[in-house]
Amino acid sequence: MSRTTTANDLQVDVDRLLGRIGALAEIAPIEGGGNSRLALTDADREARDLVVLWMRDLDLDVSIDAIGNVVGVRVGRDSGPPVMTGSHIDTVRTGGRYDGNLGVLAGLEVVETLAAAGVTTRRPLAVAFFTNEEGARFPPDMMGSLVYVGGMPVEEALDITGIDGLRVGDELVRIGYAGDHPCPNVEPHAFVELHIEQGPVLEAEGITIGAVERVQGISWQELTLGGQANHAGTTPMRLRHDAGYAAAAVTTFVRALAGELGGDQVATVGSVNLEPDLVNVIAARAIMTVDLRNTDEGRLQDAERRVAAYLDELVETEGVSVASRSLARFEPVEFDGRVVDLVERTAQAQGRSVRRLPSGAGHDAQMLARVCPSGMIFVPSRDGISHNPAEHTDPDDLAAGANVLLHSLLELAEGDVV
Amino acid sequence: MSRTTTANDLQVDVDRLLGRIGALAEIAPIEGGGNSRLALTDADREARDLVVLWMRDLDLDVSIDAIGNVVGVRVGRDSGPPVMTGSHIDTVRTGGRYDGNLGVLAGLEVVETLAAAGVTTRRPLAVAFFTNEEGARFPPDMMGSLVYVGGMPVEEALDITGIDGLRVGDELVRIGYAGDHPCPNVEPHAFVELHIEQGPVLEAEGITIGAVERVQGISWQELTLGGQANHAGTTPMRLRHDAGYAAAAVTTFVRALAGELGGDQVATVGSVNLEPDLVNVIAARAIMTVDLRNTDEGRLQDAERRVAAYLDELVETEGVSVASRSLARFEPVEFDGRVVDLVERTAQAQGRSVRRLPSGAGHDAQMLARVCPSGMIFVPSRDGISHNPAEHTDPDDLAAGANVLLHSLLELAEGDVV
Repeated sequence: MSRTTTANDLQVDVDRLLGRIGALAEIAPIEGGGNSRLALTDADREARDLVVLWMRDLDLDVSIDAIGNVVGVRVGRDSGPPVMTGSHIDTVRTGGRYDGNLGVLAGLEVVETLAAAGVTTRRPLAVAFFTNEEGARFPPDMMGSLVYVGGMPVEEALDITGIDGLRVGDELVRIGYAGDHPCPNVEPHAFVELHIEQGPVLEAEGITIGAVERVQGISWQELTLGGQANHAGTTPMRLRHDAGYAAAAVTTFVRALAGELGGDQVATVGSVNLEPDLVNVIAARAIMTVDLRNTDEGRLQDAERRVAAYLDELVETEGVSVASRSLARFEPVEFDGRVVDLVERTAQAQGRSVRRLPSGAGHDAQMLARVCPSGMIFVPSRDGISHNPAEHTDPDDLAAGANVLLHSLLELAEGDVV
Repeated sequence: MSRTTTANDLQVDVDRLLGRIGALAEIAPIEGGGNSRLALTDADREARDLVVLWMRDLDLDVSIDAIGNVVGVRVGRDSGPPVMTGSHIDTVRTGGRYDGNLGVLAGLEVVETLAAAGVTTRRPLAVAFFTNEEGARFPPDMMGSLVYVGGMPVEEALDITGIDGLRVGDELVRIGYAGDHPCPNVEPHAFVELHIEQGPVLEAEGITIGAVERVQGISWQELTLGGQANHAGTTPMRLRHDAGYAAAAVTTFVRALAGELGGDQVATVGSVNLEPDLVNVIAARAIMTVDLRNTDEGRLQDAERRVAAYLDELVETEGVSVASRSLARFEPVEFDGRVVDLVERTAQAQGRSVRRLPSGAGHDAQMLARVCPSGMIFVPSRDGISHNPAEHTDPDDLAAGANVLLHSLLELAEGDVV
């Protein structure tokens, strides 16, 4: 017999959740307790295989779509679109064990908790992991969820080339995750993603749960600066066309720009590569990235304009050439007010401190927000650290987040919140 | 019968010289007409084999020393230490065809010109090429000539690790150039090196021959900057410890420093490598080089002190760690006034315009200057370009330089200039 109402006293088993997090973190571990599982690598395949195994053990109906997103569905009393949760299991090269993984494994924990309690929800429940959320190997980030919702044609995504020169489509086939379910994929009834904050706000304020109201806009550019290779000893400073200097000047400019624009504007140069990259040769070429983010689209555009104007200035003053291409561009996203309210209310009902806040990072939930009411739950990150093996969230906070996810999903699946 | 006086009308065969330059440039060519022959690579071995073959064809007595320097000696009427010329045949990754190669091949052309004219000099003549002058694969630069004169113990040099993690000693053995002649090697009677200017002065002033008076001092440092990997979207600007930003700040600082110090101070950051080098991760580590040069030792030390002070500042302001190690450090070198006079006088006797000038680049001659009277002859570089496939010197200038070399060597070998 299935129960027909939500059980307010139902709680996840945090040790079981930690067990799965630990087991997944054993795949492609790096020093310090984190992971290096770039999308569509052998390590990603191994992680996918493990999570799919767990999904099948939980009797989920597993499907794989054309961009490699994996969805496990638990039947409900009614048919119709599922209430979905999920995230990603790819990491950056120096990733932590919680970013993404928590959202997927907490989804499995919700399913196991319901199964153990004999609860079948009215609407089906689905747990998904999306391909290449990080974008660290293939731009753009959130690729899988973008293609899931029809934001990028699947053929275009499959043809993208990564930092190692390999194609998404070829790598998907190679690791056995080029699935047959078409994209765009099924529109869920609603979507909620649990994720670590990856920032310092919750910890600094001593708050356990973040009800995410919006996600900042992202602008990723790759710049190719062309200078003139020349001898570092004999070329007078005034005659130089130094692509390495130009790259450095862009880097210090965007740092100053973020300070000047203030607010939540952030700006990062995370990748720089010089050619020929030798001590005694002025660089002929620099390939670099610029990552700009703001929750306000107008301000983000202003930042982009000012970077472009500075590049024009460098063309004049340093005599370098500049070519830029967009790696990713997403406008800020507002989550559904009803889902944000639900997360906040559920946290309070669970006796947890909660605040509304924006997300500084991009997340799969912002893509799902294009096709269904969506929201996110944040839990604190120690010292605000992420994309680093030192990433950490206390077990009690993990449990709190998973329980808020459990009861938010139950209400979405049983009632008519949305 | 050998002639006992120098022949003022003796002239090199510039087509033969160009033929050898062209043949050597066919080994490891790169687009644009240059070469990529990093020291002790397969390409370097192939180039060495070709030059050794030419040396043997010219009846030179070839010896290889423990650091792989190759010396070909032509007997004189008397025994005793030879008058030596030479340079290097390794290149940077984006090298031109004249840098180094000209000095070695002009030496062979001098020998062939003398042989064709039946001239045997009083003192023996030697043509040498020294291992790893560029230092682009293994620091320091001018390694072979430094070891030749006893400036570095051969065991220390053999144990140096290159940018690819391989050891000098292992690579020497691998390419078959770990010779049996001991280092320090024989002290020549005198040394003269012909080289392209690699700078813009001679061309700008319409002068054919440079009589090099001194070589600027060189300071090469490798800096390792340690930051904290973190999320580019969620980490507030004020909480960042960004090794990539710190590397950029050092780069723009040394550019400004060179401008401020003025004179012939140059400063270059030619190599920067970030970890993890991803668009959306604040860099945890940057490894970079700083190349500082000045003809005045006091000013060079001042530049070094100011870079060190700026690094201390960055430790405070950005919260990064800094470790530095010296890759090369050579004080400015003054050439022997008698050899500089000889070069100037010989150029005038050959009807060539000449000026005295300093060298902005390091050269093997500055190492030989430690053990014998030494000097250098410069010929113009088009647009001052070097360490670039576009490096070019007009054939008439090559001929002028080789003829000044021929008659300078003849006078040193026949007379008692030094």
